[in-house]
Amino acid sequence: MTDRPDGTVAAIGERALIERLRRRVGRHPAWIALGIGDDAALIEPGRGEVAVLTTDSLIEDVHFRRRWSPAAAIGRRALAVNLSDLAAMGATPRACLLSLGLPVDLGVAEFDALVDGLVELADAAGAPLVGGNIARSPGPLVVDVTVQGSVRRRRALVRSGARPGDELYVTGALGGARAGLRLLERGLDRAEASEAERRCLDRYERPEPRLRTGRSVSRQGAASAAIDLSDGLADGVRQMAEASRLGAAVDAAAVPIDPSVTEVAAAIDATPFELALAGGDDYELLFAVPPRKRRTFLAAVKRAGETSATRIGRLTADRALAIEDAGASRPLGDAGFAHFRV
Amino acid sequence: MTDRPDGTVAAIGERALIERLRRRVGRHPAWIALGIGDDAALIEPGRGEVAVLTTDSLIEDVHFRRRWSPAAAIGRRALAVNLSDLAAMGATPRACLLSLGLPVDLGVAEFDALVDGLVELADAAGAPLVGGNIARSPGPLVVDVTVQGSVRRRRALVRSGARPGDELYVTGALGGARAGLRLLERGLDRAEASEAERRCLDRYERPEPRLRTGRSVSRQGAASAAIDLSDGLADGVRQMAEASRLGAAVDAAAVPIDPSVTEVAAAIDATPFELALAGGDDYELLFAVPPRKRRTFLAAVKRAGETSATRIGRLTADRALAIEDAGASRPLGDAGFAHFRV
Repeated sequence: MTDRPDGTVAAIGERALIERLRRRVGRHPAWIALGIGDDAALIEPGRGEVAVLTTDSLIEDVHFRRRWSPAAAIGRRALAVNLSDLAAMGATPRACLLSLGLPVDLGVAEFDALVDGLVELADAAGAPLVGGNIARSPGPLVVDVTVQGSVRRRRALVRSGARPGDELYVTGALGGARAGLRLLERGLDRAEASEAERRCLDRYERPEPRLRTGRSVSRQGAASAAIDLSDGLADGVRQMAEASRLGAAVDAAAVPIDPSVTEVAAAIDATPFELALAGGDDYELLFAVPPRKRRTFLAAVKRAGETSATRIGRLTADRALAIEDAGASRPLGDAGFAHFRV
Repeated sequence: MTDRPDGTVAAIGERALIERLRRRVGRHPAWIALGIGDDAALIEPGRGEVAVLTTDSLIEDVHFRRRWSPAAAIGRRALAVNLSDLAAMGATPRACLLSLGLPVDLGVAEFDALVDGLVELADAAGAPLVGGNIARSPGPLVVDVTVQGSVRRRRALVRSGARPGDELYVTGALGGARAGLRLLERGLDRAEASEAERRCLDRYERPEPRLRTGRSVSRQGAASAAIDLSDGLADGVRQMAEASRLGAAVDAAAVPIDPSVTEVAAAIDATPFELALAGGDDYELLFAVPPRKRRTFLAAVKRAGETSATRIGRLTADRALAIEDAGASRPLGDAGFAHFRV
């Protein structure tokens, strides 16, 4: 065949790739009874806990571009977006699986870096890579990750548990990731990037799943519902409200905007508020907190030591979704990233 | 946008697709604490069991072609190949996740049929669809499935447990699936297909994971090792022998060849033995059985009521891999389907 240039994954073949991958995986913690190399992996359940299972994929030219982002960042991000789902459940990560669709022209060095990026975060999060598969892709690079975690059944934070009057809190500051993506789309030269531009890039390429925060809040029973902000704040509020059969009112002035976004917004023809509200990719957490648990909640967030939380609104019995801005109220709209609408 | 013709997945968008998918999922069994619609699914572990986790993907134009196989068969097969991994561990399926990369031109009717094909098998196997994600693919249709099962730790059948002198048994009859694939490659007209051709097609498109057999053998502790034959008998023997640090001798005359293969082999320029040995896609199981457990093993296979098992050789302390044919011995070779070598 002609499509196996030297140094590509096609040139060395599936078995050699699996062997390279296996060498990159470190020692397994005690709960992994069987890791890579068999028909399936075996994972000891946590005592008194249920298994938490989620999957998410990154597809080239939809979720990332190879020429924009280093392979290590792509691998790391593919896992991070899944860990963020566990964080939103208050769960502890236990293991991950990696399913790759590889274009024949992908370099072996890129393959190695992608796996390294994923494994580094997997080990740090306590969710070692225990299996997966490698196939050829006739089109885009496809990075599909599944994560298993565990949580006490009654402590799991679901989307649907919110009650009218619960307050909405969001972690961290928003808009940075989407600003970073816009900068990449506009051909930002990394070498020339300003401090603020670099911070936005980092927010896009290296999201930090809020695992300690989710777990700390879940253990204190301090939230009635939670969701992670993969598709933006407006989308997260809408999804939580719909799942809980409620409405919501967001206080525009309270939405925490990443200060770096304010610095770069003009250059990318966007307002910081738009990016924060509809941007997505920030992977912060949105919590519904009963007012009487406010102090417990804030203490749990603080104890986790990852980031702060800001009150941005409340859930309402009236099922409308509204933004309150300088005394006026307007619909929250249908903002957010829809994969089939870009 | 121009690439959203009526009736395609792109025209109706991600949320509508998720809603269609959700409607196709039936009632959950008791061990599913939380299914589709949250950040992650929650699954109760089996008492005294470990979780078994595996993932495998089907990628268009690598593992299937849309114009060859009905969408329902593609969806069903994407799950079946994963269930086969659980069968090879002796595990009981508990839940599955589906991660789809959808080309914009995929029809909604095809999407529905694909999901229906998967869900039907998922429900029959006791592994309901509990989550997943849907993304756009700028290239091939990508169907990535993860399955979680459970098994008693000490009953798990691994590849590496075989001992010298253990006998090799394979379930069912081999070669049919690869013959079916070859027929498709040669443009077989389904309407004109003979009985034997149809049986080969069925073996390729609708593999039957040997779940009851794997579980029955595992519960009786009747095998020292097991593996499923996704990449062919020769590959399975090699992988089991390597994992167990052994060699193997396969008796050519004993390999059970699908009778339909014998009927169609001439038309596809292959010998039935080649197809059976190196063909792949049959998803039968290969077991290593200590001679003193032979009767227990055969009784366990019979009790499962799915298929028979045939003794085809033995594992050896000498690490060579050989085929014994009419008194002569030749190397087993490196046969089997390698995804980067097709």
